[in-house]
Amino acid sequence: MSSTKAKVLGLCKRWSVAGVLPKSGGASFRTVTSSSSPSHNAGILAAEFYIPHRYVSQGELEKFDKVSSGKYTVGLGQANMAFVDDREDINSIALTAVSRLLERYNIDPKSIGRLDVGTESLVDKSKSTKTTLMQLFAPSGNRDIEGATVMNACYGGTASLLNSVAWVNSPEAHGRLAIYVACDIAVYEPGPARPTGGVGAVACLVGPDAPLALVPGARHSHSVDVYDFYKPKMSSEYPAVDGKLSQSCYVTAVDDCYAGTIHKLEKIRSSEIKSVEDAFDHVAFHSPYNKLVQQSFKRMLYNDARRMVARGHALPELLAALAPFASLPAAQTLANKDLDKLLSSIGGEAYKRMVGPSELISKNIGNSYTGALHMNLVSLLGDAHAGGAHLEGKSIGAFSYGSGAIATMMAFKGRKPSTSAHQSTSLSTIASTLNVASRLKERVEASPEEFTNALILREAFYGKIGASPAGSIDNVPKGAFYLKEVTKEGGRIYAQK
Amino acid sequence: MSSTKAKVLGLCKRWSVAGVLPKSGGASFRTVTSSSSPSHNAGILAAEFYIPHRYVSQGELEKFDKVSSGKYTVGLGQANMAFVDDREDINSIALTAVSRLLERYNIDPKSIGRLDVGTESLVDKSKSTKTTLMQLFAPSGNRDIEGATVMNACYGGTASLLNSVAWVNSPEAHGRLAIYVACDIAVYEPGPARPTGGVGAVACLVGPDAPLALVPGARHSHSVDVYDFYKPKMSSEYPAVDGKLSQSCYVTAVDDCYAGTIHKLEKIRSSEIKSVEDAFDHVAFHSPYNKLVQQSFKRMLYNDARRMVARGHALPELLAALAPFASLPAAQTLANKDLDKLLSSIGGEAYKRMVGPSELISKNIGNSYTGALHMNLVSLLGDAHAGGAHLEGKSIGAFSYGSGAIATMMAFKGRKPSTSAHQSTSLSTIASTLNVASRLKERVEASPEEFTNALILREAFYGKIGASPAGSIDNVPKGAFYLKEVTKEGGRIYAQK
Repeated sequence: MSSTKAKVLGLCKRWSVAGVLPKSGGASFRTVTSSSSPSHNAGILAAEFYIPHRYVSQGELEKFDKVSSGKYTVGLGQANMAFVDDREDINSIALTAVSRLLERYNIDPKSIGRLDVGTESLVDKSKSTKTTLMQLFAPSGNRDIEGATVMNACYGGTASLLNSVAWVNSPEAHGRLAIYVACDIAVYEPGPARPTGGVGAVACLVGPDAPLALVPGARHSHSVDVYDFYKPKMSSEYPAVDGKLSQSCYVTAVDDCYAGTIHKLEKIRSSEIKSVEDAFDHVAFHSPYNKLVQQSFKRMLYNDARRMVARGHALPELLAALAPFASLPAAQTLANKDLDKLLSSIGGEAYKRMVGPSELISKNIGNSYTGALHMNLVSLLGDAHAGGAHLEGKSIGAFSYGSGAIATMMAFKGRKPSTSAHQSTSLSTIASTLNVASRLKERVEASPEEFTNALILREAFYGKIGASPAGSIDNVPKGAFYLKEVTKEGGRIYAQK
Repeated sequence: MSSTKAKVLGLCKRWSVAGVLPKSGGASFRTVTSSSSPSHNAGILAAEFYIPHRYVSQGELEKFDKVSSGKYTVGLGQANMAFVDDREDINSIALTAVSRLLERYNIDPKSIGRLDVGTESLVDKSKSTKTTLMQLFAPSGNRDIEGATVMNACYGGTASLLNSVAWVNSPEAHGRLAIYVACDIAVYEPGPARPTGGVGAVACLVGPDAPLALVPGARHSHSVDVYDFYKPKMSSEYPAVDGKLSQSCYVTAVDDCYAGTIHKLEKIRSSEIKSVEDAFDHVAFHSPYNKLVQQSFKRMLYNDARRMVARGHALPELLAALAPFASLPAAQTLANKDLDKLLSSIGGEAYKRMVGPSELISKNIGNSYTGALHMNLVSLLGDAHAGGAHLEGKSIGAFSYGSGAIATMMAFKGRKPSTSAHQSTSLSTIASTLNVASRLKERVEASPEEFTNALILREAFYGKIGASPAGSIDNVPKGAFYLKEVTKEGGRIYAQK
């Protein structure tokens, strides 16, 4: 059923993976000879993703956990949760995502000069997942690939994207492209946080003249020292979480980043931005669970009301009801139940139109930590109605949050690449390659018991050396990588199904 | 004896550290209003470092370990090794280094827009040290600070530097500056690797018009998938090491990176580079132990000989003896004892002149992992004979290696900043602020028993939650940060002595 394409290459214990090399003859992405300027529309040229074969229904989990109906499906706003047992780990899911990216977009491995990985699902405290991914480049002989693993709770993927964009715009690129990976396996100990887990990996190609270009100079960040979500227990995969604190830190970061981004966008555009709809056509958020995304978008509407009142403007009809709250000291608005109630009653249509297209995957896989925002961008890129060529000329806001904490709001624009500059994909190619809806349907539903058993396997295997995982390879989708064994020294050996 | 300047600020559990704010009135570093171009001499504007108060003599350790005299002092080439007990951890030493940088160079915290940390001494698998450092910026109200923690064995500090340079050259800097920190606590289980430990933290300010500018487009990297040094044991601070493999991977990376850098420098300068002395006035290396640095420099001489023979040039007198080895297949030269013997007999004067000035600190503190190369640059910057204004107009090569593996060779140039562009320090200011030789003398020598006991304390405390360290605050130097306690949830609380 599974045939590994890897073999040990001697001294450096490398794995060669012949199956993931781009088909010879094709050449979508080759090294660009001309250097690019900082404003050269750098951003995402191509995107791929990996989600596990199995998921559990949140509705079934409600029954299994004997909680009130709707606690997970409405209270958290989640439909399904993806999971893996001990047969897959952070390296294997990153290998799968990057090998798919190289293969499905026919990328020449020699065209890559940088590779960054964002994750907080460490299986080694020194060896970085980035270096494990180098096995995909070994057959090409390309070793001149910068980049490392970035760690900061759920923010590492965004840091990797931003570092990649700065690099492709720098003289160090020498016309080459970058890849970043945002990936995590989110698991919680049994209890109320467990249904907020999830798994996913996103791999994107970054370069100039991109169909999803990052708007230069528009982003704003918010970083503070806080213990809202962290992993101090070295021998456990489970985090320590102060849910209430984390939620308030997230919303404070939305306030701060949104204000800063609006300020910068107004300068760039030389015109006033009166509302989130002035600023963006779509907004994608980091999504610990969907309900927080809903609240955060509505918080942006509230921020619009505050800004307009502060500037002496009248409030439009949509926001008129917010007038009594628009001049309160900011601290009085964070845990204000009347305001929360009011906000949940407005903006439903705007939310559905602006945020809805980015929700599909995360609602169905759960939180993929560093992957979440990037998975939501993948949903948007692949959406049948808002994605593909529909994104041309559109402005997309994106909010990334990593506990600890650092958050960034940034702006993308959808555009038609100028094919004269280099061979690029288009928004339509990305949408058809992603094929999001079909890939969600290819998965199989597992019972809450199977889900619980998978997490028991993970718990037993975490940190083990000199052992092989117990999980069946049957649950690994064809073409995906999986963990074969952890050697007695602690090295990890992977194979491709 | 110690008075903490920190107090809890409520909701977000932040610490305010009033003592490290720049003196009012002074303004060495303020936000620059004009944007900078990619070739605007970005690099290191200011440098600071932290080394622990205590060290153990390698000579005394030889006696204590009952090994042959010279095994550590000559065989490894190390003089002393710095150590800390459980009272200091990666966050505390990074806090100390950054607070010193801000204070001693009178940096306005509001002028900073990016902060990256390179480390592999994790005390939390999700919360990044970068976010802990945000407590130093809280009093200024500056939260708009990008950056995270980069993890890739000993390479994270260099990745942070390179990311910082790309960022200051990008439109995202908006005239602000970056700080990067390279820091680690290297400890090994009892046995032959234990004397290769060490501790240190380097914090540098990065911006345009720098006295130590990174040469754009000159660097070359080498990344492969290998298990040479890694940390698979989650509940232990100690690494797994394949010393022989790691050494061979390091030297292979020197070969590859040096060839690539020479090629790029020849293009930049439009002239042939015949020797390492043509390429650089000084070279600094990542230094697991000094002996490997000696071997690596001589390996560069050997690479010069290979290149010259391949290009049909006659070998100069210094390299003439290498002729019989210069055309061997590369694989036959890596574990070639005759070649090793020959190399150790040549190039001593060049080594002393070119590498010697960067050795002082690391020979006296040991391996500070991500910090090592940057500590060696600090040694060079602060050297009485080669550092300070002597570096003006000089070309400096730097080689960084992180197991796993990724390595980069890069080139810096020493220069006099154009003060018209912005207020900057000079190479002389950096040298006098670093005051390297005096600061090494301020330390106290501890016995091998004290060293062993300190590591026993660390081992007992690693991963503990709901506990306070047992190590005495007497061993923490004045002004340095230390760990007060780990809360029962796993949060870490620091104070400043």
